[in-house]
Amino acid sequence: MEFPILAWSAHLKENCFTVLDETQLPEKVICVTVTNYSEAVEVIRTMKTRAFGQLLTVFYALVLTARHSSITNLRENIETAAETLRTSRPTFAFGKYTDLVICWTNSALNENMHNPSQFVEQKILELLENIKMIRIKRAELAASILMDGDTILTHCNTSGELLLTARICREQGKKLTFYATETRPYLQGRLTSWEMSQEGFPITLIRDNQTSELLASGKITKVITGSDRVALNGDIVNKVGTFQIALLAQKYRVPYYAFVQEPGKTATGADVTIEQRDAVEVRKREGVPVYPESAEIYYPAFDMTPYNYITGLITFNSILHHSELPGGWNKTL
Amino acid sequence: MEFPILAWSAHLKENCFTVLDETQLPEKVICVTVTNYSEAVEVIRTMKTRAFGQLLTVFYALVLTARHSSITNLRENIETAAETLRTSRPTFAFGKYTDLVICWTNSALNENMHNPSQFVEQKILELLENIKMIRIKRAELAASILMDGDTILTHCNTSGELLLTARICREQGKKLTFYATETRPYLQGRLTSWEMSQEGFPITLIRDNQTSELLASGKITKVITGSDRVALNGDIVNKVGTFQIALLAQKYRVPYYAFVQEPGKTATGADVTIEQRDAVEVRKREGVPVYPESAEIYYPAFDMTPYNYITGLITFNSILHHSELPGGWNKTL
Repeated sequence: MEFPILAWSAHLKENCFTVLDETQLPEKVICVTVTNYSEAVEVIRTMKTRAFGQLLTVFYALVLTARHSSITNLRENIETAAETLRTSRPTFAFGKYTDLVICWTNSALNENMHNPSQFVEQKILELLENIKMIRIKRAELAASILMDGDTILTHCNTSGELLLTARICREQGKKLTFYATETRPYLQGRLTSWEMSQEGFPITLIRDNQTSELLASGKITKVITGSDRVALNGDIVNKVGTFQIALLAQKYRVPYYAFVQEPGKTATGADVTIEQRDAVEVRKREGVPVYPESAEIYYPAFDMTPYNYITGLITFNSILHHSELPGGWNKTL
Repeated sequence: MEFPILAWSAHLKENCFTVLDETQLPEKVICVTVTNYSEAVEVIRTMKTRAFGQLLTVFYALVLTARHSSITNLRENIETAAETLRTSRPTFAFGKYTDLVICWTNSALNENMHNPSQFVEQKILELLENIKMIRIKRAELAASILMDGDTILTHCNTSGELLLTARICREQGKKLTFYATETRPYLQGRLTSWEMSQEGFPITLIRDNQTSELLASGKITKVITGSDRVALNGDIVNKVGTFQIALLAQKYRVPYYAFVQEPGKTATGADVTIEQRDAVEVRKREGVPVYPESAEIYYPAFDMTPYNYITGLITFNSILHHSELPGGWNKTL
C-alpha cells in the first residue's frame, strides 16, 4: 500500500530533504527544501510542517548533520542540532528522540566505529521504518473498531493515519462517512478534507462552533483524533478544541478514540507544556488586521483532554479502553 | 448617553439611508448607501449588516418605500417591499414587523388620512424609538446581574448591547473583563473586540475551539450572548456555536444569560427555520480555495439552545430565570 502523502510528508535526498508545505494545501502541492537544522527549525516553527511531519523533519535534519560532520566534530554538531531541534516547539516530546540520536552518536564514537555518521543515519532510518510499521498497526486497530455505516467526526489532521484507516475499512467492505472540523486558525480541516476526498471518502467540513449541534443531531457514531502527547494516566494533549469535542461526545454518548504515541515518562496531561503561539497568526488574515491591536488574543495551540473523556487510546499494539485507564499503560509497556 | 455605533448602525437621510458595512470592520469604518428595498435585501443577504442592523434596514427600506409612493400605489408598494424584506433571511422574524407596517398602511388608507405615507413613516420611527428604550432597559437589567470583578465570555456580537451594559457597569463602579470568541466564519469577534476595546474595556479574543479550555480554567464567571429568536418555552436561536457554549457553561457551572426579544407565537426553538448559508462563504478565503470542491460543507448560520441550558433570559422588562422556564414568558407578556 502506498503511504498517504500526509503520512510521510518529508523525503531525504543527497544533501537536503524536502518537506511538503502544508500551509499551501490544497491550492498548491509544493515542497520546501531543507539543507540544515536551522532551516528545519524554521519549517517547524512556521507550521509549514506539523504533527508527524515535524518528527521526520527533526530526524532528517539530524541525518544531514551527521552526513556533514567529520569524526572530530560529529558529537558537537549533533548535540548542537539536537538541542535546537528539541526546543523548536515546546509541547512536543522531541527530546526523547533527539536523546536517542545523541546516544547513538556517543556509542559510535566511543566504540571507534569506522563510519560513525553512517551508523547514526542507519539507526535513525531504522527507527523511522519501525515507526512506519507502528502507524500501520494503529490504523489496523482503528479499523477494527469501525463498523460499516459509521460516521466519524475528526479534528485537526492525523497525518494520514485516518486515511490509512479508511483505506483498510474499504478493503474490508466497510463504508464510512467523515466530518472534519475547520480547526482554526490553521484550518487543518483543509488537509483532512483534501486527503480524504481525493481518495473518494465522503467528507463534510464544519466550523469548530458546530460540534454540539452536529453531535446532538445523532449523525456522528464515532469521534477519532490524533494526539500530540499522551500521558501515563491516559490524558492526551492535542490540537486546541479536542477537549471540547471529547466533552461534547461524552455528553451525547458518542465514543471518542485517539491515536497515541508512547507516553514516555509523562505522568499526567498537566505535566505537558502547552505552546502559546504568536497572536499575529490570528490577528491578521492575508495581511489585513482582523482584530484590533487594542484587543488581547489568547492563543494556545493545544489543549489537554483528561483520560475520563476518552473511550479508548489506539496505541502501538492494542486499544487501551476507558475502563483500563489510568494505569493501563503500565500493563502495555 | 451616545448610542454605540453598532447599536444603531443605520441612519435615515432624505432619499436614502446609510448602513455601516460590518464586513469591513475593524480595518475600515465605512457605510453603504441604500436607496430602495432591493438594495436593502442585498445588504442583509451579503451580511454587510446583521442582527439589529438588519431590523433597522428593513424598517428604513419601508420608510423609503412609503416616501416614494403616492396614495394610489402605497399599499401595493409596501406589500411588495414587505414580502421581499420579510423573506430576506429565513431565521429572522421580520414578518411580525413587516406585518405591522402593512397594518399601518391599511389603517392610513382606510381612514383616508391626508398623508398616509407620512403616517406609516411616523409609526415606524415611533416603534424604533420604543425598541431603543427596550434595548437600554435590557442593558440595565444585564448590568444588574453583573458584579465587580466579573469576567464575561460572549459569542458573536450583541449589536452594542453588551457595550451598553459595560458602560452602565462602569458608571456603577464595577470593573469587568471580557472574552470574545472569533465566531467563524464571519468573525463577529472582530466587532465585539473592536467596540469594547475602543472604549477601554479589556477584551481577549479566543478561537471558537477554546471554549471548554477557557471555561475549565475557571476564569469566566458569566456567559452573555444575544439571540436572534426566542421561543415561548425559553429556547433560543442564536449564531451557530451558542449551543455548545451554553452546554459547556452548564458543565462548568458558569451562569449563561441571553438578551432576548419577544417570542411572538414561536412555541419552541424547533419551530424556527435555521438558515443554511452558501458554502462559498466558507470554502474560499480572499478568493483562494481553502477547502477542495470535493469536500462537502455543512454551514448552518444558527443553532438552537434549549431553555434548560439557560440561566436567565434578559427580556424587555425583567430577567426570566431558569426556574421560571418554560412558561415564564406567558406570565410576562
